Amino acid sequence: MTERKRILTGDRPTGKLHLGHYVGSHRHRLALQDKYECFFLIADLHMLTTKPDKEDILAIADNARAIVLDHLAIGIDPHKVTFCLQSAIHETYELQLLISGLITVERLQQLPTIKDMAQAAHFEQIPYNLLGYPVLQAADILLPRAHLVPVGKDNESHVELTRQIARRFNNAYGEVFPIPEAYVVGGTLVGTDGQAKMSKSLDNAIFLSDDTATVRRRVMGMFTDPNRIRADIPGRVEGNPVFIYHDFFNPNKEEVEDLKARYRAGKVGDVEVKEKLFIALENFLAPIRERRAYYESQTGLVDELIYEGTQRARQEAQATILEVKKAMGFTGVWNKISRAAERRRKKAEKAAASTA
Amino acid sequence: MTERKRILTGDRPTGKLHLGHYVGSHRHRLALQDKYECFFLIADLHMLTTKPDKEDILAIADNARAIVLDHLAIGIDPHKVTFCLQSAIHETYELQLLISGLITVERLQQLPTIKDMAQAAHFEQIPYNLLGYPVLQAADILLPRAHLVPVGKDNESHVELTRQIARRFNNAYGEVFPIPEAYVVGGTLVGTDGQAKMSKSLDNAIFLSDDTATVRRRVMGMFTDPNRIRADIPGRVEGNPVFIYHDFFNPNKEEVEDLKARYRAGKVGDVEVKEKLFIALENFLAPIRERRAYYESQTGLVDELIYEGTQRARQEAQATILEVKKAMGFTGVWNKISRAAERRRKKAEKAAASTA
Repeated sequence: MTERKRILTGDRPTGKLHLGHYVGSHRHRLALQDKYECFFLIADLHMLTTKPDKEDILAIADNARAIVLDHLAIGIDPHKVTFCLQSAIHETYELQLLISGLITVERLQQLPTIKDMAQAAHFEQIPYNLLGYPVLQAADILLPRAHLVPVGKDNESHVELTRQIARRFNNAYGEVFPIPEAYVVGGTLVGTDGQAKMSKSLDNAIFLSDDTATVRRRVMGMFTDPNRIRADIPGRVEGNPVFIYHDFFNPNKEEVEDLKARYRAGKVGDVEVKEKLFIALENFLAPIRERRAYYESQTGLVDELIYEGTQRARQEAQATILEVKKAMGFTGVWNKISRAAERRRKKAEKAAASTA
Repeated sequence: MTERKRILTGDRPTGKLHLGHYVGSHRHRLALQDKYECFFLIADLHMLTTKPDKEDILAIADNARAIVLDHLAIGIDPHKVTFCLQSAIHETYELQLLISGLITVERLQQLPTIKDMAQAAHFEQIPYNLLGYPVLQAADILLPRAHLVPVGKDNESHVELTRQIARRFNNAYGEVFPIPEAYVVGGTLVGTDGQAKMSKSLDNAIFLSDDTATVRRRVMGMFTDPNRIRADIPGRVEGNPVFIYHDFFNPNKEEVEDLKARYRAGKVGDVEVKEKLFIALENFLAPIRERRAYYESQTGLVDELIYEGTQRARQEAQATILEVKKAMGFTGVWNKISRAAERRRKKAEKAAASTA
């Protein structure tokens, strides 16, 4: 019998999920949950690199709940997936430190993502934990001994770094870790304003939890072809946010082709294109809203999933950290000392008993 | 009633202590133990920066025992001092990670000690954990909320870094840590070969645990004035290892002055100067050997001290990490989720009971 391979992926609990998250990452998880044993990490310790303020930390619980609910809403099956809260997995801190000598400062400095993150956070200098965040990520991946890590193309280098750490550990101390592989998933979705990145802070996002009125407002306010100032002017379909969304969310390909043809010919108004996108999005969101309503009605269910998932992840993590400490020799050190102390205590008890 | 202030200091468990350790650091601990509450850390996690090999780790238990025994031998009172093993204090790993965003990579790179350590270890590149070892040190100091940290002049900058981390934490999350102060202790002892550093690897050390024959051999082989090829040639006292040792270990100041005068005048042979140093060292080592013999006869005592000291240190560390997590907001996050999960479980139990 072969066990199912394991997947580790996760999200920083900074807020609810939007369509950009869905396209880039979460839709892929739907397919993965049937084939793999999935650990979905709520990576709150990673927030300490760029959002370390107390108010950010205090928002973690609600953000974690929102993210898990978003997962359930898109169709993630809570029986197939383990949600877990990183900061409550004590072994994460341990493994992170124990493997942190297996990679050099120079190697970490070569990762472009770290500089990008520092820039995005307006840091003049890089905090020590930001430089080391791929090491923490490696600990996240190695603790459940994951085989596969779904990542976007730009984060593939982090998995390569985890592979390097795992190989070096195995070489130095003995085989403990499977060498994880990156499972590159694709897809990005522009913001409603056409900017490359959909994000809450850019105010160009449609959230999975947005209601009908919000979705309508967002869609009707979307950017289209800026040169098309009247409906009878031929428009550009390529790179046009409204058509990018149509391509992705409107399953009626005939309708989309018809709209594109008329748009190119200057024979359809923006309003009609947007109305039809709105309807497509509403259809897309309908089952998501239905599942959300169902799961929301189960008071405490999301908390229970996080709580029990974290316990389950900890069991795995404890087994791994024990292997790690055994392999490195630390278990032997403590056993030697504590057993000798125990023998002394027992001898003293015996002596006391025989005197009495 | 005012509580006694706390001290945190420690040693990497790389081997037994020699006279260089004694002069530079451990003799000061004798005075400190009466005035302060002392935590003496066996800093084995710090070994992972420059000595991460399994054979080094496997040697930790015996090295830790040797170091504690050396402490007891020089007169450290096990009732006054808490010995603790760093790798067995789980809170160390946690605090290290939680504070690792409070200091920048640049700030750490400015510390000359790190480059020196990398050079001494023949590293071409600096491992991530070596750059961050002052952060781990900060966690060591902050966990027992130490007020004073005895350090040599060249390590004062590390305490300054800990102060910075403590201040930043208190500012960001609320007052948790006292701001520790460096307690600069002085003294260095040249090796028997006159090199600036006494060390096992340079083979120029006299260990606190050396026997009479070894001490004699070491002393008789010591370097003196290299220009003095015959006993009737005037010799140089300044910078002469034998006289440096006399100044430190021979309490008979009259004898030392007489030897110096005769040495300068070319009226005493090296052998006589060394014979008298040998006698002085033997007198210095006599009570140390006596205490060592006593403590060695108590089978398992040293292990018990490390075991119980570690438990005691963990209690302190647990209290601190709880304060830290409360202040940062992490306790609240987990409580919120686990309590909601608990409420759901209870409700389900109640419902099941009422159906039954």
